[in-house]
This record gives sequence, C-alpha cells and structure tokens, in this order.
Amino acid sequence: MPLGERSGHKESRYCGVETEFYDDIPQLLAYNISSGGFDFAVAPLMDPAYRPSLMEKGTGGSGVLPFAGSDLVLSPSQWSSHVVGKISSWIDLDSEDEILRMDSETTLKQEVAWASHLSLQACLLPAPKGTSCANYARCVNQILLGVNNMQLWLRIPLLKTDDDSMDINSNSLVDSWELWNSFRMLCEHHSQLSIALDVLSSLPSANSLGRWFGESVRAAIIDTDSFLTNARGYPCLSKRHQKLITEFFNHSVQIVISGKPVHGLPKGSADLAANNNDSNFDGVHRHPLRSYLDYVGYLYQRMDPLPEQERFELGYRDFLQSPLQPLMDNLEAQTYETFEKDAVKYIQYQRAICKALQDRVPDGKALMITTVLMVVGAGRGPLVRASLQAAEETGRKLKIYAVEKNPNAVVTLHSLVKLEGWENIVTIVSSDMRYWDAPEKADILVSELLGSFGDNELSPECLDGAQRFLKDDGISIPSSYTSFIQPITASKLYNDVKSHKDVVHFETAYVVKLHNVARLAPSQPVFTFTHPNRSTNKSNQRYMKLQFDIPSETGSSMVHGFAGYFDAKLYKDIHLGIEPTTATPNMFSWFSIFFPLRTPVVVHPGSSLEVHFWRCCGPAKVWYEWCITSPSPSSIQNSNGRSYWVGL
Amino acid sequence: MPLGERSGHKESRYCGVETEFYDDIPQLLAYNISSGGFDFAVAPLMDPAYRPSLMEKGTGGSGVLPFAGSDLVLSPSQWSSHVVGKISSWIDLDSEDEILRMDSETTLKQEVAWASHLSLQACLLPAPKGTSCANYARCVNQILLGVNNMQLWLRIPLLKTDDDSMDINSNSLVDSWELWNSFRMLCEHHSQLSIALDVLSSLPSANSLGRWFGESVRAAIIDTDSFLTNARGYPCLSKRHQKLITEFFNHSVQIVISGKPVHGLPKGSADLAANNNDSNFDGVHRHPLRSYLDYVGYLYQRMDPLPEQERFELGYRDFLQSPLQPLMDNLEAQTYETFEKDAVKYIQYQRAICKALQDRVPDGKALMITTVLMVVGAGRGPLVRASLQAAEETGRKLKIYAVEKNPNAVVTLHSLVKLEGWENIVTIVSSDMRYWDAPEKADILVSELLGSFGDNELSPECLDGAQRFLKDDGISIPSSYTSFIQPITASKLYNDVKSHKDVVHFETAYVVKLHNVARLAPSQPVFTFTHPNRSTNKSNQRYMKLQFDIPSETGSSMVHGFAGYFDAKLYKDIHLGIEPTTATPNMFSWFSIFFPLRTPVVVHPGSSLEVHFWRCCGPAKVWYEWCITSPSPSSIQNSNGRSYWVGL
Repeated sequence: MPLGERSGHKESRYCGVETEFYDDIPQLLAYNISSGGFDFAVAPLMDPAYRPSLMEKGTGGSGVLPFAGSDLVLSPSQWSSHVVGKISSWIDLDSEDEILRMDSETTLKQEVAWASHLSLQACLLPAPKGTSCANYARCVNQILLGVNNMQLWLRIPLLKTDDDSMDINSNSLVDSWELWNSFRMLCEHHSQLSIALDVLSSLPSANSLGRWFGESVRAAIIDTDSFLTNARGYPCLSKRHQKLITEFFNHSVQIVISGKPVHGLPKGSADLAANNNDSNFDGVHRHPLRSYLDYVGYLYQRMDPLPEQERFELGYRDFLQSPLQPLMDNLEAQTYETFEKDAVKYIQYQRAICKALQDRVPDGKALMITTVLMVVGAGRGPLVRASLQAAEETGRKLKIYAVEKNPNAVVTLHSLVKLEGWENIVTIVSSDMRYWDAPEKADILVSELLGSFGDNELSPECLDGAQRFLKDDGISIPSSYTSFIQPITASKLYNDVKSHKDVVHFETAYVVKLHNVARLAPSQPVFTFTHPNRSTNKSNQRYMKLQFDIPSETGSSMVHGFAGYFDAKLYKDIHLGIEPTTATPNMFSWFSIFFPLRTPVVVHPGSSLEVHFWRCCGPAKVWYEWCITSPSPSSIQNSNGRSYWVGL
Repeated sequence: MPLGERSGHKESRYCGVETEFYDDIPQLLAYNISSGGFDFAVAPLMDPAYRPSLMEKGTGGSGVLPFAGSDLVLSPSQWSSHVVGKISSWIDLDSEDEILRMDSETTLKQEVAWASHLSLQACLLPAPKGTSCANYARCVNQILLGVNNMQLWLRIPLLKTDDDSMDINSNSLVDSWELWNSFRMLCEHHSQLSIALDVLSSLPSANSLGRWFGESVRAAIIDTDSFLTNARGYPCLSKRHQKLITEFFNHSVQIVISGKPVHGLPKGSADLAANNNDSNFDGVHRHPLRSYLDYVGYLYQRMDPLPEQERFELGYRDFLQSPLQPLMDNLEAQTYETFEKDAVKYIQYQRAICKALQDRVPDGKALMITTVLMVVGAGRGPLVRASLQAAEETGRKLKIYAVEKNPNAVVTLHSLVKLEGWENIVTIVSSDMRYWDAPEKADILVSELLGSFGDNELSPECLDGAQRFLKDDGISIPSSYTSFIQPITASKLYNDVKSHKDVVHFETAYVVKLHNVARLAPSQPVFTFTHPNRSTNKSNQRYMKLQFDIPSETGSSMVHGFAGYFDAKLYKDIHLGIEPTTATPNMFSWFSIFFPLRTPVVVHPGSSLEVHFWRCCGPAKVWYEWCITSPSPSSIQNSNGRSYWVGL
C-alpha cells in the first residue's frame, strides 16, 4: 500500500522495513506487509551463520546453500515487488583476514546470483567496513557486468563530521561521501550501482546533504533511534530530519524503517520487536514499527501539492533534449503553441515596450509622433500583440513591421492581422532579418531570439544583421543578455550522456529541466551581449575564465558538468531570465542548459574549480568549447565545434 | 650532414640552428647548412613586425601576408628536410589584452597553415608566456585537429626550482613540466604535439630531468649561454649537461643550437653573429656557431658503441606486443629458436640443477643413486640438455622424463634424443603435465613456464598439476617467483594504446622493450608463488595493494601505467629475472610487461600512488584486474577479464 498519491504526482512513494533473517519468507511478508502495512521488506536471503570455508568440502555436505526458502514460496511478482534482498552484513571484502575476504566474495556472489534468479528489483549491499573498499568494489564491479536489471544499493551512512581538518591522511572516515565516491569511481559510474543512505540521529550541514541529491540515492534507511518522541509518546522527527525526508519524497527516494521499536509502544506489544525471530507473527497484534510508518505517511500526506507549472514539467525532469536550432530550422506549429502560452514572458515584454514608448515619445506628443517598431523574428505574432497592447496602454501611436523568416509562420501572421483588423498598423515582412532591405529605420527593435544560454540561438548574429535598420538613437528590446553557469553534481544526466558511448554526446549541450542535481556554487556570468552594438569590436567571439569556490562545509563534490542559464535586460529595470536567484517567476519557456564534462571531476574542500568557456564563430556556424584547468586540466571539449554547433 | 652514424644505431642524429627572421630563405639555408654545417634551420616564417589588427582593412593593403619568400624559393624536399617553422615568438594567447590575444590567434593559424602548405615536418611554438595557457592550448588543439602530419613542438624551458614549497597557489612557475602537462592534457594527449626543451645553463635534479624521457621530447634547444669555455677558449658543456645531451642522443632527440656566439670566436669573425641580419652571408667566413656544432658532434662521436644485445633489441624499443599464450597455443619453431639462444638463462638453470643434485645425493652415493628428474614443458629440449650437463658436472646419475604438450616440439625432442644418444636416460612424454599419469614420482621438477610478469603464462596452474608426481621431499626448479611493478611515464606507449580507440587495448598487458620511459619509483613485489605448494590454501588468486612514493624532488609526474617484471628463485641462491635492480645480465628471453592506465594520472609531490592488482581465476581463464585508489580512484580495469586473459 503506497503512502498515497500526492496531487499531481505521477508516482506514489513507498515505505519498506528492514528485517532480520527469517527462513519463512511468506510469513515474514504476511507480518510486515499484509498486516504491518509496509510496502516491501528488506530481508536477508541467506542464513547469516553461513561461511563457505566452514562447509565440509567434497564429503557430507548436501551442497544446498542455506537460503531462506526456495524460489517457489512466493510468486515471481511477489518476489520482485515485495522483497529487496539484504546481502549478509558480516561480509568484509577488504579485511586483512584472507579467509574472511574469500568467504565474503563467495557469499556475496552466491547471494546476488540468487537474488537475480528471483528477479528481485534490488539488493542492499552492506556498507564498506573501513575507509578502504577496493576489493569490495572490484567484486561488485564484476557482478555489475553480469547482472541484468537488478539495482545494487550500496548502504552508506549519512555521515560527515564538521571537522575542517585538511588532514587527508587521516584514517578515520570524516565524510561518507568519499567512500561512496571511491566505490562508484572504481565501478566506473555503473548505472545499476546506487545508494541506500543510512539516516542517523544527527545530520551533517545542509550544503553537505545537498550533494546527495545529485547522486543516485534510491533508498533512505531511517533507524528508529533517529526518531524523537512527541508529547504523546509517539515517534516523530526533528525539523531538519522532516525537511530531509520531504526532499527524499521529492526526489523519488524510497524510505525504509529499520531497527527495534523504541517509542510509544502500544500496550501489550512491548516485547514484539519486528526484528525478533521470536515475534508473534499472528497478524493480530499491531506491527511494532507501525507508528514509525504512520509518521512517515503523515509527512508525505502533508506536503504541499505541486504548483501547476511543476506538474507540467514533471515529465521533463532530468530529460536531456537537444537545443532548438530556430535559425537553421523552422519551428513547428506545436513549438509556437507551447511558447505562446507563456503569459509571463509577454507581460514582461509589454512592460518593457511601454517604458520604451514613454521614453521615446513624451506624453504631450503622444498623438503627434508615430513610433516605428519592428518585431524581428515575429513568429506567429505574440510580440506584435504585446507591442500593440503597450501602445494602447501608453496611448502612443505605432507603426509595426513584423519580420519573420519562417514562411509557415508568415501564413499565420497574415491571417492574424486580418482577424484582428491590424492592417493599418502592421506590415508583415517575409524575410530573414539579416538580409532584409528595410524601407525605413526603426525606433524600437523587439526580438525574442534567446536560448537557455542566452546567445546560443544566435541572437547576437541576428541582431547584428538587424542593427542596420535601427536608428542611431534607437532602442533594442532586449538591450542586453548574459549567460551564467554553475557547477553541478548530476549523476543521472552523466549516465544518460555516457550511455551513448561516444564523444559527441559528451560534447553537446542539452536543454533539460534539472531536478536530481546538486548545485555546488552560486552561478557566475559568462558572456554578455549588448544591442545595439556600438563598440568598435564587432566580434561575437568570447572567452571567459571563471573560478568557482565550493563552500568547504559541503565537503568534496563531484562535478559532472555545468548548468547554464541566462538573464536578459529587456529595457531598463525590466528583465526576464532563468538564472535561479533572479529567475522570472512562473515562466516556462526555457529550461536550463547542461554542459557535460567528459571526465567528471572531484573538487576537494579548499581547492577551487577553474573553468574556461569559449564562444567561437566560423563562416557557417557558432559553437562553444569548454574545459577546466583546476583542480586538474581536462581536455578541451568540442574543439572546432566537432560535436555540437549552431548553424548560421 | 648528420652528426655521423654510431655503430649499430639505425638512425643518425642531426643538429639544427635557430635563426632570426630573414626574408631570403635560400641564402639563410646556404649560410647555415651548406656552409655552416648544420642539418636544418629553425627559422621564422613571417615578419615579426606583422600584426593583423594593424593591417589596413578592406582598402589599400595588398592582402599578401609578409611571409619569408614564396613556396617556390625552395624545392618541396628542401623545405621539409631543412626548415622547421619557428612561429612568431611575440604571440601571447593568454594575454589580458584582447587585441593581442586575437592578433596572436590569427597569426598562429596563418603561420601554421603556411608551414603546412610547405609540408614542413615541424613547427616550433613559442613557450606559453605565463602559468596560464588554456586559450593557447584551445587554439593549438583546434589546429591539431586539422593539420596533417606536421609535428608541433611546444617550446618549454627546462626549469624546476628546487623550492619544495607546497604552495600550489603560488603564481610563479616553479616547474615547467606542469605547464607542459596542462597544455597536453588540454590538447587530449595529441600525438602530434611534442616538446622542444630549452636547455638552460643550470639544470634541475636528475630525478626531475628523468621525467622528460617518458615524454615526447623531439628537440633540445641549447643556448650558447649554457656552454662553458674550455682551456683553449672553445665552448664545452658541464659534465651534467654532457650526460643529458648523451641521453638525448639515446632517445632520438634532435639538438638545436641557439643564441649568439659567446665563446672563442675565430679571429676576424667576432662581429658575425649568425642571428644578425647584417651578417656577411658570403660562405667564406666560418659560421660563428660552428664551434658549438663541432662540440655537439664530438659528444655524439665519443659515445660508446651499443652492446650487441641492445643492438638486437633496437627494433623492439617501445613496440607493444601481445604476450604469448604458450598454454593455450602451441609455440612456433621460430619462437623456440629465439629462446634457445639465450645461453645465460640455461647456465643459470644448469647451476641450479647442479646444486639440487648435490643436495639430493651426497658425493659418496653419487654412483649408487639415480635421481629422477622431470622437465615439464620440455619444448625442444634445452632444459634436458642443461640437466644432462649438470649431471655430468656433478657426477650424479640421472633419469629424465621430458614432458611436453606441443606435439610439434615432441617431434624435435625425439630426433634430438636419437642424435645425441640419450635413449637410455631420457624418456619423452607427449602430454599436458596437468593430466599426465606419471609411472613414478620425481626428485626434481624442472620447468621454464615463466612470462615477463612471472605467473602470467600460468606457471602456477601448470605446476599445481605437476606437483602430483613430485616426491614429498622433491624439489621444484624454480622454487618460487615473484612479480614486480613500478609506475612509469610512457607517453609513446600511451598514445599507441590510445590509437586503437577502444577500451580493450587499455585493458591489455603488453610485452615491450621499454625505452622512452621514466621509471618514477623503485619497483615493488606483487605476487609470489612457491613450488611445490604445501600450504592449505591452494588458490592461485591473489590480491595486492601497493603504495608508491615518488621522490618529491622529481616534481609532479604523469603515470601512464606500470612496468612489470619478475624474479625467479631457481634453487637457493640461484635466481634469474628482469627486475631492473637485480636483473640477470645479458639475458634476452624476456622484455618487460606494461599495464596501461585508461586515464593517466598525475601524482604531485608529497602524495602517494596507491595501486591494486588482482590475479583472478575462472574455470577456463586467468586474468589480472588493476586500479589505483590514490591520489584519486580510477575505474577497475579488465573487470572479469573482459579484455585480456590467459586461457587455461
């Protein structure tokens, strides 16, 4: 029984329970699921007393491994939807004891093979015992190369001491993220290796917690010890824990309750620990962990419903799209339809045009002067409409040229002009603005040629071409725009890019609704373009070197690439953009852009990330190149635009 | 005119001269080459006064770039064999000055395009001006992707202060290797990007110099200022410089003389500097740098001739070979032929067998006791011969079984036995030693099943099989063997592996005569096997974690992979092996083995390199996996033996 569906959410959230070994799996499920109310059990598959080296060799032994029941005791769908295999927690593949190491490897492989035979969705691997995990990782990596669809959840305690000691030779584990990072790097970022976080009673800093939301966390195991007791004696969680659990819900992380009941036990069940083999599995008594489950369900139910825009964007979360090439290609009707629905964007344009009209023509001369306004890249007319509304709002007289290169959109424009009776004001021009021979010069040039990274749809090149027919004192709306980047952890995006197994996909920028990411440092401006461009340097080539300092309390972090945004100054104080700290609310026309790194880089506390971005221009295309030079140099990505470019 | 051919060397060495801009290239060559005696000139191709931004745009300018003469002034072969293009040294692509940056990029691209048009073999790129070189590298990387066969030599001063300051944020360049490393990493280790080292008057420490012999150094530019003056007033070099130049000769590095003459000028030529455009190019006067050239020629001529073994191995230097699979495949006659020529190896075996026979049978019983000796893997009989000679030498009586699985070698064995009249002593057994049903047990088991990495040709598995027919107190020769590894810089090998553009080649170990490599730390033992194996643990799986500390005076270093060796204890103090510090002299049966790293790793002074090696055994194959975990974790290479394995 899921925790319930949250309004607008496509998926439900589930809550599991960690159990000890019990060799009657059907009864274990009846107790914990049918009767206890949990959705699944994280249950050991093999008797924990088993050690391969103690089995009699050759003689005597039946050769039957001590698994909890045969595959027949449950139906295949019961196995896969109700059981997560818990790998024996005694295994220690990096022990100094060679016998223990070899027993551990044998057992691990046998248990995973059994789980795979049962078509379980996941196995929970015990946390590495020390700070060294190379042999464990080697064995898991061998398994990963052979296993089909099963996920392996590596258990990792959510632990980071706030000790800022830079003693990297210290043997004590100060940041469990480091352990996870070593393990997954050794396993080559395998997409079926993910994390089960052990949530403890004390939590690391918020920045440090944030890193995990860019990693592949599949489950959060909350020990009953981490709960507080409320006034009525029932379990509850601290505010910080509540916030964390809510974030887990938002990031599709399953919750698992673990441990013995230690809070407000209902009368008569005080000695019925779930994890006790002696428990009375009679289905009559309330499950001793039920109050923990109820509390988790309560946290889920009380979450605010998703706003409409986020509901709309749910299906796009972390889904990589190639950026549009509106200059080289013609947009389709569906695309225009989507963008035209973004009311907020056109309100901002209308406000900017109002201000420009008022600056251009004083109130006293409003009836005398006709302002020539050109919408370049008019599409199906939303900016023409916004301009006309601005004229009406300010009482200014307008003459509009609507310039559009897409002949299909021009058809719509013509019918719109007739339909709305704009014939006396609006002239439609079917031409590429870069080559149009304008009959007069414009007071105001209005365009919306911006991509997620500002200039990436070649607004600079288009407006340079259109600038010829703007009066010397004319106004461009937008008057400038700036791109921004910030380093992010994004293991899901990285694995999606990597799955193509080529360089081209690593050297491409993607439009994407970022969700399972950790933003590691504030964004910084990259390239700015100003219109009209009155400077002597007409080049649209750019080069920017940036240095990001990741807060040291975050700890070490993995940088999979860079999130990119833009902010555009339309006119004076009217702006629009998607840079997170200044983003225009409720605007949905642009997702972020993502620039991947071919080799993700770990940045340690105290060292900074130095990044270089180039905007390069050739005769027929514009492209970006990017690289990092600190903490260590990467290769330069997308050299000569070999993988990704925008056609002129 | 080459510096001369050294006995046994296949290639000659050449010496060039760096010149200033002179727009009459034929005269420049006549002066420096025909008359001056140099082999080639490193000459600027373009007037150094040229700046693209100062050219009149559109009007007036002829549009002709100020190159030194047209392509017609020399024949194509003269251009390519006598001229290395020296790129304008004023360029600075990482300047704060944007105009200078853009002028630099334009000029660099024009000059390289011209050099490419002339089919020059190489261009000399000026050294980066500061510690930052990302934009320079970006531009060179773009060029590298387009240029055909030309090499780009990046000029790098041979500079490393002995300051052990760990202040990595220091802006002053303390180690020019770091600059080179950044540049080549940004250019993705491109094989056409190489190094021209500027040799200065003071030299860094020997360890630090050693790094460069693993890098792609193509030229060493020696400034006249770096020469000392000998008693007769002529230029000479310090002992350390002489040693370095000799090493350059040994590593096919061309020498270039640069600068103004400052030593022992012949009378009357005191003001005739080579690098002075006013020089009297009349061919009558001796070239003012001739005495430097003569000295370099003298250093080359006085080198010791190459020993015979090294001459034999010249063609194999840095040439990657797949290891033999003598168990799965049958060796060919040619292979036996080669190995049987290695007298040193069989002398060691004979010495070991002598000792074993003497230990086995006291002098007094020599005539009474017949020792049963089995040669397992007898091949075409060299160990049979060595055993017989040992018997003769010690006066012991022998009965020999020669066990061989290759039926083709058995043919030879039979004829050998007849030819030599060994019928009464030697019994030939055509069988795989693992499955042979021996008629009696052996006193001594002699085998030579070792690969470059000791156990890599499955000696352990074979001898485990043969151990059945060794007496309980019997002797195995070899009695044990150990593999060794050490981290190396090996850019040539790395690029050869990379050229296959797949993972498989990076996960393969290669047999290779290592030459252009830097050995960064002493080798350490990895896996040891002892025969007969009387321990309870019969597994031949192994796991070893090693930590290498690179001497801090070396500076940062690039680890491209690991050189592997073995040492075998034949019997008591008689050993043979190829581990560099204990290698058996004049033995040529084994080259080293090379384990590449998919991602080469930079190790900084003070941080250590932690390496893990596994020997894994499956039902049908044995393979190695390897990874590093410090300074940062790599992926585990060759998981499950997916790329490289040895068949059982």
